[in-house]
Amino acid sequence: MFQAAAQTVFVSSAAASVYRSVFLVGCRRYCKKTPTKLRISEALSGAELGADVKVQGWVRSVRPQKNNVFLHVNDGSSLQSLQIVGQAKLNDPLLTFGSAVEVTGILKKSPHQKQPVELEAEQIRVVGECNPVDFPFKIKDRHSLEYTRQLPHLRCRTNAFSSLLRIRSEAAAAIHSYFKNNGFLQIHTPIITSNDCEGAGELFKVEPSGPDFSDDEEFFSVPAFLTVSGQLHLEVMSGAFSRVYTFGPTFRAENSQSRRHLAEFFMVEAEISFTESLDDLTKVMEDMFRSATEHVMARCVEDVDLFHRHVTPGHRVKIYLPHRCKWNSLYKASLQLLSAATDWGCDLMTEHEKHLVKHCGNLPVFVTDYPYDLKPFYARDNQDHPRHTAAAVDLLVPGVGELCGGSLREERLNLLMARAGLEDTYSWYLDLRRFGSVPHGGFGLGFERYLQCILGVDNIKDVIPFPRFSHSCML
Amino acid sequence: MFQAAAQTVFVSSAAASVYRSVFLVGCRRYCKKTPTKLRISEALSGAELGADVKVQGWVRSVRPQKNNVFLHVNDGSSLQSLQIVGQAKLNDPLLTFGSAVEVTGILKKSPHQKQPVELEAEQIRVVGECNPVDFPFKIKDRHSLEYTRQLPHLRCRTNAFSSLLRIRSEAAAAIHSYFKNNGFLQIHTPIITSNDCEGAGELFKVEPSGPDFSDDEEFFSVPAFLTVSGQLHLEVMSGAFSRVYTFGPTFRAENSQSRRHLAEFFMVEAEISFTESLDDLTKVMEDMFRSATEHVMARCVEDVDLFHRHVTPGHRVKIYLPHRCKWNSLYKASLQLLSAATDWGCDLMTEHEKHLVKHCGNLPVFVTDYPYDLKPFYARDNQDHPRHTAAAVDLLVPGVGELCGGSLREERLNLLMARAGLEDTYSWYLDLRRFGSVPHGGFGLGFERYLQCILGVDNIKDVIPFPRFSHSCML
Repeated sequence: MFQAAAQTVFVSSAAASVYRSVFLVGCRRYCKKTPTKLRISEALSGAELGADVKVQGWVRSVRPQKNNVFLHVNDGSSLQSLQIVGQAKLNDPLLTFGSAVEVTGILKKSPHQKQPVELEAEQIRVVGECNPVDFPFKIKDRHSLEYTRQLPHLRCRTNAFSSLLRIRSEAAAAIHSYFKNNGFLQIHTPIITSNDCEGAGELFKVEPSGPDFSDDEEFFSVPAFLTVSGQLHLEVMSGAFSRVYTFGPTFRAENSQSRRHLAEFFMVEAEISFTESLDDLTKVMEDMFRSATEHVMARCVEDVDLFHRHVTPGHRVKIYLPHRCKWNSLYKASLQLLSAATDWGCDLMTEHEKHLVKHCGNLPVFVTDYPYDLKPFYARDNQDHPRHTAAAVDLLVPGVGELCGGSLREERLNLLMARAGLEDTYSWYLDLRRFGSVPHGGFGLGFERYLQCILGVDNIKDVIPFPRFSHSCML
Repeated sequence: MFQAAAQTVFVSSAAASVYRSVFLVGCRRYCKKTPTKLRISEALSGAELGADVKVQGWVRSVRPQKNNVFLHVNDGSSLQSLQIVGQAKLNDPLLTFGSAVEVTGILKKSPHQKQPVELEAEQIRVVGECNPVDFPFKIKDRHSLEYTRQLPHLRCRTNAFSSLLRIRSEAAAAIHSYFKNNGFLQIHTPIITSNDCEGAGELFKVEPSGPDFSDDEEFFSVPAFLTVSGQLHLEVMSGAFSRVYTFGPTFRAENSQSRRHLAEFFMVEAEISFTESLDDLTKVMEDMFRSATEHVMARCVEDVDLFHRHVTPGHRVKIYLPHRCKWNSLYKASLQLLSAATDWGCDLMTEHEKHLVKHCGNLPVFVTDYPYDLKPFYARDNQDHPRHTAAAVDLLVPGVGELCGGSLREERLNLLMARAGLEDTYSWYLDLRRFGSVPHGGFGLGFERYLQCILGVDNIKDVIPFPRFSHSCML
């Protein structure tokens, strides 16, 4: 015992603090005085039963009883909170909903079925107070998404939004994994660009705000905008790496406050060289969707369950369908459906999309080969006159509408040259076709719409940490 | 054999194209007619020796000889190209440096030591021509970084820049892995913000460019800017999840074309709750650096080697040093060094940073506890009058200077309230201290500077796909 105590003293004064945690782990067996710091998810795993531990987090409930006080403490590492049991003398008027605490004690098997583990507290310390009168969330209330949306700096403290953010983080990781495992290189495409990829009208302009710059002078010497797509930059890269992707924010200055639109949203975009058919593209879209969704369902069981039970009840069935059906079986039918649903030559409207999805049994459906004149200059000409279509594809999903859009890109220099104006503004893009051009294609997926799709969330503002849209840029 | 042929026919006309690749793999053993599509890195691995394969990529060299033609073909999946050997009759005047080709043939063990594997071509098809007179890269030249920088749409086709982008992609993945494995949640902090986190003067303003908006009206109802840091948004999240990080672009409207500055660059930022000393922060910085660097060194051996041999010769030793030395041993000395190097009360200039790093044996050094008045409002007051410092830390590294900057954040409401003006503009930030405030801290790492640091690259424009700086926004 003497030796262990001496070690403790040495450790706490050691300059080489990098070794501290190593020593402490070794020391813990002998001296009970230094509890192991655990996250709530680690404590709940049950691996440390019997250990002297310290947990830190925020109080989700307080139940003082005659002999004991019961707390639930959450630190965001999981949806579940850890139950703390302390003697009545450990109660403190500052132990309120939302306050921050540090608790030391022994992890025990819980006598209650609801939780596997509980912490028998030896000490409960209130680290940060939380006045229940001022705190905008109340302990017993279930707050609506509309209400929490007004509190962007606090809404991550609600169960629903913390679950959403854990799912979002896991889904992002899953998408990165999918691409990495399939030989795609991640490219950080730029946010500020001098391209106007999809035509004017919805662009944000970027200018320095400081006094160092006069109004006559462009900071970048050319007009600069926030990107609406990383596609053209990915096309540059697909000419060297064959398979590339980007995953980052994109922007639209759309004057809309609808449940479907954001001024800043995340897109996953991929570009694949030596691709000669839309089948190659739709296969990647579908594989990525399934792979990410399976990953999220496996890793975020409780969080997804919370959504399907309490936030978007009734969605459970829908969400699993994309796993079980064969999307491709719907694929070939799409062109005819498109003709039936719309006058040929008109772009699909939201109502048409809904009709198509419904017609296909409320399953995801790929719509392919749009009228050539509706698509941007880079879409590949199918040369199927007189109908004249472009090799473009959209993926429509129930409840959300367009989830992905993609196309084969026109790789033939002479066909691109025939499009007016390209030589002036996009000579660099024509260079990609001058020097070692290859058949290629790509697509983009709206990441927020993906989250809406798998969780059944109606409003896109509820699946992004800090939504930006017209007349709203909170924080 | 009949059965196999029948299968092939069935497969190529099968509507259920999702199963095509599965069938082909099963079929390949029997019918030699359908070569397996391989990436160059897969072909080079030697796993498919003897197989009938198809590779696709860009020609890096052509050597016609009397009986044979030798090509090197690269598809970006690795630095190494695959050697193709074909009979002289397969040569084609269109087989030039930079042209795109598709080659089928048999993978064989190479008789030459330089490469383990070569492809004996049965067919060589030029997919995309590349006129060697017009193509700005020449087959025998080694092009300078300055020259390639002028060709942002083509420079990924050079060895050096393709290696850089593979390293960059791998380093980004390694950083994500580090945080995921250590219980950090990824938060997509916003690009557009109404905060001015670090003071005015270097901000980009964001405004819609279309005709739908008048000049008098703000799109977001408030002035909106490109983010200079995700820190304040991460602090919101650290109040629910304890450990959070973000990895994305940040912006400075700095009128500089120096080798150290970009208008758009990537930052890794982390925020950690229940953190009471700078040691906790510096440990994460150091762990992340070491973890990512070890990962890159192990996964990108050839690409890193190319840099250290040809692009930045002499850097090899430096790069490994951060792995081998103990950063922490330099840590305690920094405050005294700072006093020696500067007049107390002045911020560190680039020259001071160089001096400090040199003084510490050209090793990374943490500089801690800066004068309080030099640091932003959120830095935690050390209350060590009369000296009066803030609990802030910078990590300085050889050649690059400041790589990371961080601090403990002022979690005490009364101390924050004493700072003028916060109540008006940052009442939401004060709310974080009103409701369950906890001691916390965080830091940011400049991702491009990190790449410069491990590769020895002098100019920051050479480590980002599409550099943006004053008077330059190409593509």
